[in-house]
Amino acid sequence: MPPDVVVRRLPLYARTLAYLQQEGVKSVSSQELGARINVTAAQIRKDLSYFGQLGKQGIGYKVDELLHHINRILGLSQDWNVVLVGVGHLGQAIARYSGFSEKGIHIVGLFDTDPKKIGNELVGLTIQHVNQISTVVREHNVRMAIVAVAAEQAQDVVNMLVKAGVEAILNYAPVIVQVPDGVWVRHIDPVSLLHSMTYYLARESPFEKA
Amino acid sequence: MPPDVVVRRLPLYARTLAYLQQEGVKSVSSQELGARINVTAAQIRKDLSYFGQLGKQGIGYKVDELLHHINRILGLSQDWNVVLVGVGHLGQAIARYSGFSEKGIHIVGLFDTDPKKIGNELVGLTIQHVNQISTVVREHNVRMAIVAVAAEQAQDVVNMLVKAGVEAILNYAPVIVQVPDGVWVRHIDPVSLLHSMTYYLARESPFEKA
Repeated sequence: MPPDVVVRRLPLYARTLAYLQQEGVKSVSSQELGARINVTAAQIRKDLSYFGQLGKQGIGYKVDELLHHINRILGLSQDWNVVLVGVGHLGQAIARYSGFSEKGIHIVGLFDTDPKKIGNELVGLTIQHVNQISTVVREHNVRMAIVAVAAEQAQDVVNMLVKAGVEAILNYAPVIVQVPDGVWVRHIDPVSLLHSMTYYLARESPFEKA
Repeated sequence: MPPDVVVRRLPLYARTLAYLQQEGVKSVSSQELGARINVTAAQIRKDLSYFGQLGKQGIGYKVDELLHHINRILGLSQDWNVVLVGVGHLGQAIARYSGFSEKGIHIVGLFDTDPKKIGNELVGLTIQHVNQISTVVREHNVRMAIVAVAAEQAQDVVNMLVKAGVEAILNYAPVIVQVPDGVWVRHIDPVSLLHSMTYYLARESPFEKA
């Protein structure tokens, strides 16, 4: 099994290869691919070596072939249905983002607890109460969910999703949620990412902006 | 210098300690802290050892003290001004998100290129054309920026920001942008995070949802 850090990089390879394909590029060296993703060529070769012999010494990788192979590894030869819980400002932006369906991720259910929102239409879906989650998960064979609720509600929502059978959760709430073994969770936390950069900025004097 | 992976975890420690503080917890063991953040106690101790002797054997960490110390390490004893480029659905949600200012991050400028948006007010700020970036960066001593434009525009916007003197960029556009040495960038890419979980789901048979 490849380490999780390698699995997390695979979608970046896939995304970058898809851009290269759009640009009409037919083959790419690990140097070129690495430069686009900000990792070393050696890292690329090591990462990909977990998944078999994918490139040729001195020739590099065929873009179409490698993209197809990585997509298959990532389970992207099939589409995935997801539900979205939390339809505030952020949730609405997520629901409207076309980047999900372009990459085979289809939002099939929108949930909230706000009576003023329930029953409203958004992107062709009717916002439902969270107590309908398990019905929608079952009907649409949903295995993944996106959580965009407030921090205080996130763990309860995650518990409901897990109970409904969801196995992977992308959490935008600014709290680290707990999930049982066998359930995956990734966090999106812009404040923490900004703070991980203030660390460095605080150590440098700002360059002169005269 | 601690490795970047440790620096990236520090804000999670800070966030978790702030929650513990709100809950009235006075001291915490590395086990308890680790359980909240999903890392091992050994990892916590190793991470924190980069920044001096912070806990006491058998007693653990004083929550107030450790939080104060980590905030200082992260440069959070001061507030930070940021600009936001791209005021579409996502950018609007970002501008409206109170979680930034609660953690000392203040959005002081909103920028777009859409003539229909420029001049509009949002969260008390007037949306300006991107050609005003350098003026605002200079006036408000801005060192960080958030980018929420389309993938095709992201690199150009990042180049403008870097030219204006911005040193750290949080990029929501689904493309890995290039920055010169001395400039930091973090990416938020929900599709890639979801795909890094489909990898695992594709390897398991979904459990029965009968």
